[in-house]
Amino acid sequence: MLDLRTPKGTLDYNPEQAKKLQEITEKIKKIYEAHAGVPIQTPIFELREILTNKYGDDAKLIYNLEDQGGDICSLRYDLTVPFSRFLCMNRIQKIRRYQIGSVFRRDNPSFKTGRLREFIQADFDICGSNLPMVNDSEVIKMIYDILGAFNIPYKFKIKINDKRILMSLLELCQVPAELQQTACSTIDKLGKLTMEELTREFELKGLSEFSIQQISNIIFNRKAGNKESIEFLKGLEHEELQKAVSEMEILLKYLDLYKVDCVEIDLSLARGLDYYTGIIIEALYEGTDVGSVAGGGRYDNLCSGLSNNSLKVPCVGFSIGVNRIFALSKVNPVAFDVFVGSGFGLNIEERMKILKEVWDLNLKGETFTGKRVNYKDQVEYAKKNGFRTCIFTGDNEIEKDICIILDLETQEKKEIERKKLREYLCDFFKIDYTL
Amino acid sequence: MLDLRTPKGTLDYNPEQAKKLQEITEKIKKIYEAHAGVPIQTPIFELREILTNKYGDDAKLIYNLEDQGGDICSLRYDLTVPFSRFLCMNRIQKIRRYQIGSVFRRDNPSFKTGRLREFIQADFDICGSNLPMVNDSEVIKMIYDILGAFNIPYKFKIKINDKRILMSLLELCQVPAELQQTACSTIDKLGKLTMEELTREFELKGLSEFSIQQISNIIFNRKAGNKESIEFLKGLEHEELQKAVSEMEILLKYLDLYKVDCVEIDLSLARGLDYYTGIIIEALYEGTDVGSVAGGGRYDNLCSGLSNNSLKVPCVGFSIGVNRIFALSKVNPVAFDVFVGSGFGLNIEERMKILKEVWDLNLKGETFTGKRVNYKDQVEYAKKNGFRTCIFTGDNEIEKDICIILDLETQEKKEIERKKLREYLCDFFKIDYTL
Repeated sequence: MLDLRTPKGTLDYNPEQAKKLQEITEKIKKIYEAHAGVPIQTPIFELREILTNKYGDDAKLIYNLEDQGGDICSLRYDLTVPFSRFLCMNRIQKIRRYQIGSVFRRDNPSFKTGRLREFIQADFDICGSNLPMVNDSEVIKMIYDILGAFNIPYKFKIKINDKRILMSLLELCQVPAELQQTACSTIDKLGKLTMEELTREFELKGLSEFSIQQISNIIFNRKAGNKESIEFLKGLEHEELQKAVSEMEILLKYLDLYKVDCVEIDLSLARGLDYYTGIIIEALYEGTDVGSVAGGGRYDNLCSGLSNNSLKVPCVGFSIGVNRIFALSKVNPVAFDVFVGSGFGLNIEERMKILKEVWDLNLKGETFTGKRVNYKDQVEYAKKNGFRTCIFTGDNEIEKDICIILDLETQEKKEIERKKLREYLCDFFKIDYTL
Repeated sequence: MLDLRTPKGTLDYNPEQAKKLQEITEKIKKIYEAHAGVPIQTPIFELREILTNKYGDDAKLIYNLEDQGGDICSLRYDLTVPFSRFLCMNRIQKIRRYQIGSVFRRDNPSFKTGRLREFIQADFDICGSNLPMVNDSEVIKMIYDILGAFNIPYKFKIKINDKRILMSLLELCQVPAELQQTACSTIDKLGKLTMEELTREFELKGLSEFSIQQISNIIFNRKAGNKESIEFLKGLEHEELQKAVSEMEILLKYLDLYKVDCVEIDLSLARGLDYYTGIIIEALYEGTDVGSVAGGGRYDNLCSGLSNNSLKVPCVGFSIGVNRIFALSKVNPVAFDVFVGSGFGLNIEERMKILKEVWDLNLKGETFTGKRVNYKDQVEYAKKNGFRTCIFTGDNEIEKDICIILDLETQEKKEIERKKLREYLCDFFKIDYTL
């Protein structure tokens, strides 16, 4: 007996869900194209070596394909590394690209919060050199527009930080250079682990008691607002830090220009990935148990790493967690146009002829194709499946050369001449019937 | 040094190609929805045991995932078996569903003819009992509409056969029952192998010389037209065959009703898959080296097989080979709306403000974000990337509170007041600016 289920952490989207998914990705795509984004599409799997040393500790979550001879491959873990590989292969230095597709992680799945092993990311990245914070502010505006585009009854917040600020602060906390990257991974777990667990992890990684205390005081200590954060940072003596802070001020000015409120500097925002080099971003809807719905940042060195330093492309971008938007937003019912029914008798050929007229007008139509047609069943089916109108034929109607129209919104029923059906449909659906 | 390429048989779609792919799938989707189709989405990989014993000899082409603990999985080989699994899991007996997505086969790839290891199928299936040939004729009409929807300079042809006719003919050729299915696999290779190779394969499979001769006379012998094929078949004595032939006549009548010409009965059409039980379909553009662009048929027993006979769902459907349509059809250039430039000076903030107005009108807009802005470069970039109009600001323009408009179609250049920009854009792009 077969085990009829999908693999752990994966799911089927039924028609209602798949429709909702389509609507979400369409909305995102529209915003990506408004910002002159162009699509690319990369394979579901990549040569394994391209994915190695990109995801820190989480590399263990990568799905491998079996070695069946030929290339050694793994399923893609995100869309960013394949994109960088694409840039390097094609020597592209300037592009605004988007890609929407499945990525795969052997993580602990939770359907409720939208954490799956196969999940959908919608990425947008702007590549090419730019005046400080111009592209960075644009991607944050885009996240703002996207999160506001859905009918989700929660307020959202966009948290930002800068990798350079974070690394400078770790230096000021006297964390040795070689431990700074791994310390970031632990900082990223704030909120998921308790303070005690965090402390233990820092200790295990070799941070001194002083450093841990300082991290707690400086990095974990939430500031009252962006002004306070900036003021606090400006009081610290550190050249690299001050450069990043003055750019952060430019960013805040641009976000103001774009009327993006709800951005909050969070000095503890770290994000797991190794490749960020500047601004880092994470967005979430407050008061939900769904985690972050968007994440991203600037990664200026990923291409140089992949291309053995032969191509340098500054990039900033983000990824929308489509399944998390999905988990939070409401479903719109499916809708069709014309259900063709038979009142008395089967009359399948007459119904097929009517359907052809419906389809010829680019309307969405269906009829029952089985042996039984019952008036009530047909009307109920049409209602349940979101048809707007019914056209009934039948033995009598064929004889009298008419159709019966049932408007499912108004429940109005009327006879029309068979040869006027096309005209009626054009009127009802506001189609220019001179075409 | 990293090997910067995609795995064998896979490819990246660059922006132009990805856009073309989107246009193709959008067109197909529209036709699927016109026939009241609803989407579903299934995972990229399935439990391996669900895929076994479905694909005959071609099962060796299945991609396996590495056993990393947990479920034993394989990448999906088509969308039909996962769909049947979905029907069984959810006890669905009536649905018109579509699914568009990647499937994976470790086949010998050829980019030119659109045969890839990761390729895109667009499936539509109608499930549920029906009057003979009603759903079957509808799916053939859909293939007809789809193949006619693209700007492809070749005529297409839809070949049909019936698995019951083929099996009956094999019986008449005295092929033993247990060899009929495997004989179909060989018949499917007609056109790919020479007659000698076919004969050798038949012999190896244990067919008698008489049977091979008969197959050549009856099945491989092309008839002059559909009428001739029907007449020929009607002359044969075989009950099951005669039932299938009379249904074939009904099908031809319905296709006539739908004004589907270009359908051709081909008694040698076999298709490799084991699961077909009635009509089989294959479509191609004539005179191209791209193989079949659509294939399908009726499979009434796949669900019973998967569900241990607990669910019986008659199904008929087809799959469009999107990459083959892709290989044959032309590209439409990408198009955007407004490029915002600077004539003299950087003026990045003013440009960002203009862009915000552009985006607020749901228009597609971009500006250069780097340190250099040169008038000629900007105009060339805007032209090359399909922008319809340019708006230039500059040091002088800001002082005089104006913008310069450059219409890229007419090359017309004019000044407008800065505060009238929104009005201008609404006029130009025919947007209702009272909104």
